[in-house]
Amino acid sequence: MTDPLPVGATIGILGGGQLGRMLSVAASRLGIRTHIFEPGENPPAADVAHQVTTASYDNDAALTAFGQSVDVITYEFENIPTRALDLLESLAPIHPGRQALATSQDRLTEKTFLQGLGLQTAPFADIASMADLTVAMDSVGTPGILKTRRMGYDGKGQARIMVPEDGPQAFADMAGAPAILEGFINFSHEVSVIGARSVDGAVACYDPGENVHEAGILRTTTVPARLTPSQRTDAVLIAARILNALDYVGVMGVELFVTPAGLIVNEIAPRVHNSGHWTQNGCSICQFEQHIRAVAGWPLGDGQRHSDVVMENLIGDDMDRVPELAKTDAAIHLYGKEEVKAGRKMGHVNRVVKPAS
Amino acid sequence: MTDPLPVGATIGILGGGQLGRMLSVAASRLGIRTHIFEPGENPPAADVAHQVTTASYDNDAALTAFGQSVDVITYEFENIPTRALDLLESLAPIHPGRQALATSQDRLTEKTFLQGLGLQTAPFADIASMADLTVAMDSVGTPGILKTRRMGYDGKGQARIMVPEDGPQAFADMAGAPAILEGFINFSHEVSVIGARSVDGAVACYDPGENVHEAGILRTTTVPARLTPSQRTDAVLIAARILNALDYVGVMGVELFVTPAGLIVNEIAPRVHNSGHWTQNGCSICQFEQHIRAVAGWPLGDGQRHSDVVMENLIGDDMDRVPELAKTDAAIHLYGKEEVKAGRKMGHVNRVVKPAS
Repeated sequence: MTDPLPVGATIGILGGGQLGRMLSVAASRLGIRTHIFEPGENPPAADVAHQVTTASYDNDAALTAFGQSVDVITYEFENIPTRALDLLESLAPIHPGRQALATSQDRLTEKTFLQGLGLQTAPFADIASMADLTVAMDSVGTPGILKTRRMGYDGKGQARIMVPEDGPQAFADMAGAPAILEGFINFSHEVSVIGARSVDGAVACYDPGENVHEAGILRTTTVPARLTPSQRTDAVLIAARILNALDYVGVMGVELFVTPAGLIVNEIAPRVHNSGHWTQNGCSICQFEQHIRAVAGWPLGDGQRHSDVVMENLIGDDMDRVPELAKTDAAIHLYGKEEVKAGRKMGHVNRVVKPAS
Repeated sequence: MTDPLPVGATIGILGGGQLGRMLSVAASRLGIRTHIFEPGENPPAADVAHQVTTASYDNDAALTAFGQSVDVITYEFENIPTRALDLLESLAPIHPGRQALATSQDRLTEKTFLQGLGLQTAPFADIASMADLTVAMDSVGTPGILKTRRMGYDGKGQARIMVPEDGPQAFADMAGAPAILEGFINFSHEVSVIGARSVDGAVACYDPGENVHEAGILRTTTVPARLTPSQRTDAVLIAARILNALDYVGVMGVELFVTPAGLIVNEIAPRVHNSGHWTQNGCSICQFEQHIRAVAGWPLGDGQRHSDVVMENLIGDDMDRVPELAKTDAAIHLYGKEEVKAGRKMGHVNRVVKPAS
């Protein structure tokens, strides 16, 4: 295995949003600098990064200079253009690797991969045409959700199909993008496992958190999640199986539905994950540092939780609550976004509830 | 009172060392940017700051541009030239204020101030000449320590006087700098209180930590400190009295000797303090964020501790231990200093021992 990155080394991060911002902060704790690559102006991560490149993903000169300036490359979002990755990969290692990206960039590939590992997923079908959808509404069943295969997040690129008559409108909503139909799952609640794998193949997982969504956006994560001991073990084993199958390096978020028939994998994200933000105040080594440790070739922390935590996202006008939240013992984490928009993640708060149960 | 600084505001920090670095990180959690002013090249804080000015404290143009670019100014060390402060104060508020700086910059002023509050200090005498020292070795007594009135830190600018015959050499060691003679205190251990005061006068203190020094440099801080309940109350009341007397805004470190005759104030530092680093992993709101909250006009956190912590400094070659420390559950905090020097603070580790006792 390669030597761990030393003090003064630089990790390149593709994407300058809040995840890149918190990755930068975590890197600083290990004496490692970050260089952010981000097309948008004034990205949140720029406030705490050593260097920032503002350029688009088709700017080969900027990508080359970026790739040459860093020791290793990681990313905060999975929808990175393949051509940019090809160029960057010739200049520095990319962690997590291309297989993880290719798998998670496409819902069809992802679900096929998960089933190939013997894991349960929602029933699904590939939808390239209205004819495909007509067949699939019968085989997969309704109600279901039509989702674009690529580029979906926070509920975007999705249309519900409650009855077959909803099919044509849902198909039109996809605007010609390749899609899949997913059957509804009858689940009691959703949990997620934040898992990590190091360069030398060690795996560490945080305790599963329980997620509540509103309007397709994560609202709260509560740790510990309501799980039986065997469900908790299952959740961690599922995450470990996925990490190992992808020869993964870094942190991954694995969302699971809890059902009477066992745990069903909803989706995987090859990066630090909103549902792991609680680790910042519940663990000595948070998910952001764990990810930096993995991509930097450091040993992983064991992920032990010292406290029970409730994480709540601050979305849009939730920012109006910050003055009151500041009077409480909640740990506030704002992302430095000056413009408040409806549905925009502006920050989160972690409430340390009590010592780990 | 003024409005709290909003998202996107900028705090100017004088000094770009590890304290400025960790202040920058804490500011980012509140959505606030930092601008570092530092004469040295490649300061540790530059890795995580939005902006850095590299200039000396007699560069009026650079100071002016810096002062005009920020909403409020704070600092990570107390020995800032008065002329620079005069200029900066005309451009933006400075917290903690000039009275706190003037008091703590000079050991004679500080001890006189503390005694004026009715607090116990070591016996001391003003030493401007060898004749003064001869008299003082009799009145204050020996053994004692001769210390320069200004610019001392980590045991520098100090000379021990075990017997009166050591006087002349100790006086020569001061190289003509104004000094004070401090009598030795017979103390069982040293503790420190990290206190904070907000713009509107609210005070919050963390639980006292117990400090162990080696060669004049802090080695470990353990929380909670060995104190009786009444000593603990005393310690916090002493800190609060000092904060209020100085109309202080920000975090202050107050070092106290524990003696059979009560708590004796060793010294105060008008800034975040090495003995408060444990708060990063023992509290939801650490001393760095507490300081940023105070100078930014935010409400203070209440300083509640969720865990018992042992903080250990990594000094010089202690960096060789990092690979082994990385395999444990210790929270590692490195400062990004590439050059290891004997006696140089390179980082620290916080070990969360157990839930708060």
